Amino acid sequence: MANDQVILLDYWPSMFGMRTKMALAEKGVKYEYKETDPWVKTPLLIEMNPIHKKIPVLIHNGKPICESLIQLEYIDEVWSDASPILPSDPYQKSRARFWAEFIDKKFYDPSWKVWATMGEEHAAVKKELLEHFKTLETELGDKPYYGGEVFGYLDIALMGYYSWFKAMEKFGEFSIETEFPILTTWTKRCLERESVVKALADSDRIIEYVYVLRKKFGAA
Amino acid sequence: MANDQVILLDYWPSMFGMRTKMALAEKGVKYEYKETDPWVKTPLLIEMNPIHKKIPVLIHNGKPICESLIQLEYIDEVWSDASPILPSDPYQKSRARFWAEFIDKKFYDPSWKVWATMGEEHAAVKKELLEHFKTLETELGDKPYYGGEVFGYLDIALMGYYSWFKAMEKFGEFSIETEFPILTTWTKRCLERESVVKALADSDRIIEYVYVLRKKFGAA
Repeated sequence: MANDQVILLDYWPSMFGMRTKMALAEKGVKYEYKETDPWVKTPLLIEMNPIHKKIPVLIHNGKPICESLIQLEYIDEVWSDASPILPSDPYQKSRARFWAEFIDKKFYDPSWKVWATMGEEHAAVKKELLEHFKTLETELGDKPYYGGEVFGYLDIALMGYYSWFKAMEKFGEFSIETEFPILTTWTKRCLERESVVKALADSDRIIEYVYVLRKKFGAA
Repeated sequence: MANDQVILLDYWPSMFGMRTKMALAEKGVKYEYKETDPWVKTPLLIEMNPIHKKIPVLIHNGKPICESLIQLEYIDEVWSDASPILPSDPYQKSRARFWAEFIDKKFYDPSWKVWATMGEEHAAVKKELLEHFKTLETELGDKPYYGGEVFGYLDIALMGYYSWFKAMEKFGEFSIETEFPILTTWTKRCLERESVVKALADSDRIIEYVYVLRKKFGAA
């Protein structure tokens, strides 16, 4: 694996890219990072992900792997000698996959609509977002990490969104620390890991970016 | 595994349930089938899938596994001695997962909207559906099965929709056999398998069901 060529096409604010960066760091995989604005659609992005033309794309020895959750599975399988990402038990694995899918299917939409909408729609979206935070906190329960004692797949899947939490709080007018203390303790625990901290974007820079997006989406 | 208790909560027209039935049959797993109308939300369904309250739910020794693609992975891992479902190579596995996700993220919506919409929306949906069929045919290429020489994960993921093909053709006013001959040859190849044939619902019964749904959705 020493001569592997690993490239990550990613865009700095992407919660999905942050996941992949965490996983690569957990495994100690060195890679070349290529900043790729997904609004631009560079020839390399189109070549590597012709179907969705989205980042992140992980390119391993010339072969593209698309979609962040699929990348986590791939990274875990290929670099299997370092810290495992997915649980080894099939049932625990199915639960981790279920909740990661929940995050992208249910949590994702209100997580950005909370800063992109106004009025009645905003109120409905905020309510939904808070419900999903609650659900995710309940699923964590009193475990240190989602998978139990060890940081892994579902922690990565949700911590990918961490850089966006402050923007959600600002435009949603709520405090994660006040409303979800257990989840907050968990985020602090995850933030003790270098793999997590180094992968995350600065929360204030995300807020500046959100102002740009709000103009783009006509919400400001 | 001989004393395993396996229950499948499923509803006969579900393309997702048909996938799981195919996978269980491929592995030779015996199970109890419990017909579960997802519009009704039985106490057992709510208990086993409290988040989405959707079928299919695979219950293995009392533990629920939700979401059909996650079930395929689970079945492949737990009953690993019989015919493999996923490719063993991590890159091929990532491709199979990518395309299965494409089917549910992109193909699914137009696959039902083609019989649930009218007028301009219908025309747009039909165009999209045909494009996705073309994309899926191109991905198959000249391979006998999606994974190569052996029937597996992505074949199951797409063949789950087969019982609905006739309804798509009828309300979309197109012929899969004429437009997508390579895909048609592949469906015929898959239909030679008992695991597939036994899992599928009758296409004409699906069309009758579509008439019921069209009334429900106000499209008739």
